[in-house]
Amino acid sequence: MQLARVIGAVVMSIKDPNLEGITLLLVQPLTPAREPAGRPIVAVDSVGAGVGEEVFFVRGKEASFPFYPAEPPVDAGIVGIVDHWDLG
Amino acid sequence: MQLARVIGAVVMSIKDPNLEGITLLLVQPLTPAREPAGRPIVAVDSVGAGVGEEVFFVRGKEASFPFYPAEPPVDAGIVGIVDHWDLG
Amino acid sequence: MQLARVIGAVVMSIKDPNLEGITLLLVQPLTPAREPAGRPIVAVDSVGAGVGEEVFFVRGKEASFPFYPAEPPVDAGIVGIVDHWDLG
Amino acid sequence: MQLARVIGAVVMSIKDPNLEGITLLLVQPLTPAREPAGRPIVAVDSVGAGVGEEVFFVRGKEASFPFYPAEPPVDAGIVGIVDHWDLG
Amino acid sequence: MQLARVIGAVVMSIKDPNLEGITLLLVQPLTPAREPAGRPIVAVDSVGAGVGEEVFFVRGKEASFPFYPAEPPVDAGIVGIVDHWDLG
Repeated sequence: MQLARVIGAVVMSIKDPNLEGITLLLVQPLTPAREPAGRPIVAVDSVGAGVGEEVFFVRGKEASFPFYPAEPPVDAGIVGIVDHWDLG
Repeated sequence: MQLARVIGAVVMSIKDPNLEGITLLLVQPLTPAREPAGRPIVAVDSVGAGVGEEVFFVRGKEASFPFYPAEPPVDAGIVGIVDHWDLG
Repeated sequence: MQLARVIGAVVMSIKDPNLEGITLLLVQPLTPAREPAGRPIVAVDSVGAGVGEEVFFVRGKEASFPFYPAEPPVDAGIVGIVDHWDLG
Repeated sequence: MQLARVIGAVVMSIKDPNLEGITLLLVQPLTPAREPAGRPIVAVDSVGAGVGEEVFFVRGKEASFPFYPAEPPVDAGIVGIVDHWDLG
Repeated sequence: MQLARVIGAVVMSIKDPNLEGITLLLVQPLTPAREPAGRPIVAVDSVGAGVGEEVFFVRGKEASFPFYPAEPPVDAGIVGIVDHWDLG
């Protein structure tokens, strides 16, 4: 999983029927030092994250688990809003 | 998932039988600033995307979900045509 | 999925029993401009591809689908021989 | 799988219900020479690893296996604390 | 799949119970020209490979197939010892 910041949202009118009603956000992966870590990706949101928030996302089919029993065709999903992280 | 632009199509006469009738497009992944983000890949299309359009694709087995109950051997699929995206 | 050229073959006498009788080819992923796109990988072949041919391969467990009901431990497979591609 | 060092922990109060009670650690992947190998990632812990320890983590859905029958939406998990490694 | 050379072994006393009795080797991925191709990874071994040998490994859940019905949490596994490869 990776830390990221929500930087925007994607709007689509023509899409797979299993994506109806699902929010698609643009997220910028971050290093623990809050530097950009690679390119922004698109992730589904199941926790109510908003632009500017620091989140935690998962890749792969696991991104669809929060929508079970629906199986939307997604490969990245925000599964938590980060309070903070500690470097030990 | 990633934003991308459709840049072409692939034609194959010898192929896995489960790919019969499935459209294979070349897509260039994009950053939110519309710059190329890595190399073009080949993706199946289930939403009727055309060359030049901005789309949204998913990687992994999830790319085959729109073809269920068929299980074509694919790992990338276009699942939406993008209207626009907002950077917050 | 990615475009690639077949550049060789791999011979193994000690291997997982589920790989018996399966052809293993070395493939060089290609950009649409036919330039090498990263490192060569090893892919199983289910369509009869030969050295020098341009093919199309899939990554992940999907690479084993053409061998169903066998489940060989493979993560890349050639699923089509490319006739040509069009850049629109 | 990869070698890594635990470098911190992530705290989230808003998260997927299936992540309740699961420890999320920041880990820095390592080369066998103990140099950083790419960016830190977030991994779940099922073996009681602590900050500073050298561990071994797995990527993908397999990261959720130690929590079975729960299926938390995770894609990286620490599955062992390393005693040492030998370069032959 | 990728070609690789076995370069060492990893010893862990605290680990997931499903990893008991499974050999963990360090492997250096190779190009067909036998140059290092990226960073070493850790792979399980089901074919009796030893340090210095050229092998062939698979990534993903498929790496656990040789251990079926056990499902160890692994994402890379050696599935063959290479005799040689031919560049056509």
